[in-house]
Amino acid sequence: MVIRSPRAFREKQNIDARVRHRVTAIDPRKRTVRAENLETGKAMEEPFDLLLIATGASPILPNIPGIGARGVYTLSNLQSGIAVREAVDRQNPRQAVLVGAGYIGLEMAENFIRRGIRVAVVEKAPQVMSNLDPDMAMLLAEELAKNGVELFLEESLQGFELQREEVRAVVTDRRTLPADLVVLGLGVRPNSQLAREAGIPIGETGGIKVNEKMQAETGGIWAAGNCAEAFHLLSRRPVVFALGTVANKQGRVAGINIAGGRAVFPGVVGTAMVKVFDWEAARTGLQEREAKQAGISSAGVKIEARTRAGYYPGAGKIFVKIVFEPGSGRLLGGQIVGHEGAGKRIDVLATALHAGMTVEQMINLDLGYSPPFSPAWDPVLIACRQAAGQI
Amino acid sequence: MVIRSPRAFREKQNIDARVRHRVTAIDPRKRTVRAENLETGKAMEEPFDLLLIATGASPILPNIPGIGARGVYTLSNLQSGIAVREAVDRQNPRQAVLVGAGYIGLEMAENFIRRGIRVAVVEKAPQVMSNLDPDMAMLLAEELAKNGVELFLEESLQGFELQREEVRAVVTDRRTLPADLVVLGLGVRPNSQLAREAGIPIGETGGIKVNEKMQAETGGIWAAGNCAEAFHLLSRRPVVFALGTVANKQGRVAGINIAGGRAVFPGVVGTAMVKVFDWEAARTGLQEREAKQAGISSAGVKIEARTRAGYYPGAGKIFVKIVFEPGSGRLLGGQIVGHEGAGKRIDVLATALHAGMTVEQMINLDLGYSPPFSPAWDPVLIACRQAAGQI
Repeated sequence: MVIRSPRAFREKQNIDARVRHRVTAIDPRKRTVRAENLETGKAMEEPFDLLLIATGASPILPNIPGIGARGVYTLSNLQSGIAVREAVDRQNPRQAVLVGAGYIGLEMAENFIRRGIRVAVVEKAPQVMSNLDPDMAMLLAEELAKNGVELFLEESLQGFELQREEVRAVVTDRRTLPADLVVLGLGVRPNSQLAREAGIPIGETGGIKVNEKMQAETGGIWAAGNCAEAFHLLSRRPVVFALGTVANKQGRVAGINIAGGRAVFPGVVGTAMVKVFDWEAARTGLQEREAKQAGISSAGVKIEARTRAGYYPGAGKIFVKIVFEPGSGRLLGGQIVGHEGAGKRIDVLATALHAGMTVEQMINLDLGYSPPFSPAWDPVLIACRQAAGQI
Repeated sequence: MVIRSPRAFREKQNIDARVRHRVTAIDPRKRTVRAENLETGKAMEEPFDLLLIATGASPILPNIPGIGARGVYTLSNLQSGIAVREAVDRQNPRQAVLVGAGYIGLEMAENFIRRGIRVAVVEKAPQVMSNLDPDMAMLLAEELAKNGVELFLEESLQGFELQREEVRAVVTDRRTLPADLVVLGLGVRPNSQLAREAGIPIGETGGIKVNEKMQAETGGIWAAGNCAEAFHLLSRRPVVFALGTVANKQGRVAGINIAGGRAVFPGVVGTAMVKVFDWEAARTGLQEREAKQAGISSAGVKIEARTRAGYYPGAGKIFVKIVFEPGSGRLLGGQIVGHEGAGKRIDVLATALHAGMTVEQMINLDLGYSPPFSPAWDPVLIACRQAAGQI
């Protein structure tokens, strides 16, 4: 535990936080949890009145030869991050291959380049960041190229070449890329196996089903964080996003309810951000493709503007894309890619999505203006104005 | 005209834009406008079917001796800004005195200091930026002092000392401050005199009364921008703010309606921002004092957090203050002072004000998170969480 130690939990809040214990089974009828003390190997059984499952998510590991070799890493927690940094410090790798061009791939690409390591990124899809539209993702791909990252799209990981159990290359369906270090960023999967084995209902997403109080469908059992589903307020469907913000909010709501208070977590709108060298990228709500999947008709507009007043030093580019429902003008989502100060503008769109606003209502939003921070028409409003003209 | 020339208006849009003409009277019954050609001195009369009044606002000039002396400036348009810059370039002033510690005073203070000029700021109120609460404004006052700006609060301008018609000092009720250059930033007043003389109804604010289509109360006459009132969505009262964002939006709505389209400007929530050296300050909605004036009961909370994840390089301080209605929890306003990335967070509060959200609803807003941009709990949400605990 990082932010607070088990000792602090015990002394300040009378909470018996047992680390280095692995829960092996939950029995919802007997209301017990079986666990193994990883220090002593001793098995134990603990009774419970109420149980919170907060088992998180784990990186997806494809079942291919060499996946366990030295030099092949995933990134999911502090330990795994430290392991990669130590490998870089210790081995001075010259060439890293990142598999997957999502958050982990792109953030690691930037940081490896800054450490002077050559970087290749392999991605199965025809674009980076599949939760952005292709034209927005293209801007990030160009930024990667500009900074010397080699990008191999529409290629899939087949295996590894090893030497003395250590990775030497990544093999795709089209080439072999030399590698001293490999990081796999292929997404995560909810750690819901324990719940599933206990008969606690699991959704199609693989996450534990919960209501907006964060109760599982089995009495007395709660779940929160990356092991649990969240309700998507636009698609009206359960999703698993595995983001720290969602996990934090769910944990808070579960905790308040378990302690006898009242709180709800109505759901998410799918907001996410990433920094890629000099670009900031953010998205919220539904892409047009996602709207279609959810059975919602949609249209999109895209504008280019400046992050600050055009004459102000440091005014950078910003692209804003707005997805809305034709007819009603209801905002469905948005994407932003731009220079410094661009990304967090996604929050206006996220807030408007929670409030169910239309793009017409949004045109007149009284957003903050001063030349160092924005043009008189904030780029988000320019996009809304454009969208409103096409309802 | 700066952004588009009269010629471009004529050629591209068949609009006869006559500059250097001063309108001297409006006759709503005859439906004529009398004007003077400032180049030729010739008087003229023009008929109209529909009239838009967009006369803006002018800086307040106290009626004291020396106000017209050389070296005493106001700032309200491009010409007046150029005049100040040319005075700095030409005269190399050593000491500037700024009267008024609002946007103009604070922005000029920063820019004069960067030009190597000593700066004193005189302000009648006991704090800078009176649209911030005293504790938030104090942070800006400290930043000014840190950067060498001398601040004289609770002092009022009495007059000037002149030498050969040129300013040499500013006299307050407590001292005499040597000055080679003086900028007055005492606020502005709507240019509504022409409308008033024509019998077009003027509000208590001094601005032209308009409805949400931007129609004045006299048939066929419209008004927009700093000469017109805006409706405050929280206090439910007319206000005049004289901000470029509001003027732009009002002009757009008036233009669409005059041209036969349909658009409304429902009103403002009072959002404003300023940069003061390394601090960004922003506000929206009502301060507690303003809520009281509007007959709304209110409570406030203030939190301190970081602009980015605490461990991320460049994470700066941010203070967020939230004003809400006890009982209902309705958001009434907010103020933010902090380092880079702090200010534009006001937009989340502004959007939530437009949507009529409660602080409890806001806790679960799915805002953008990534360590370079925000802690997992955005500072705005931390403040909402705190506020919700005190409803």
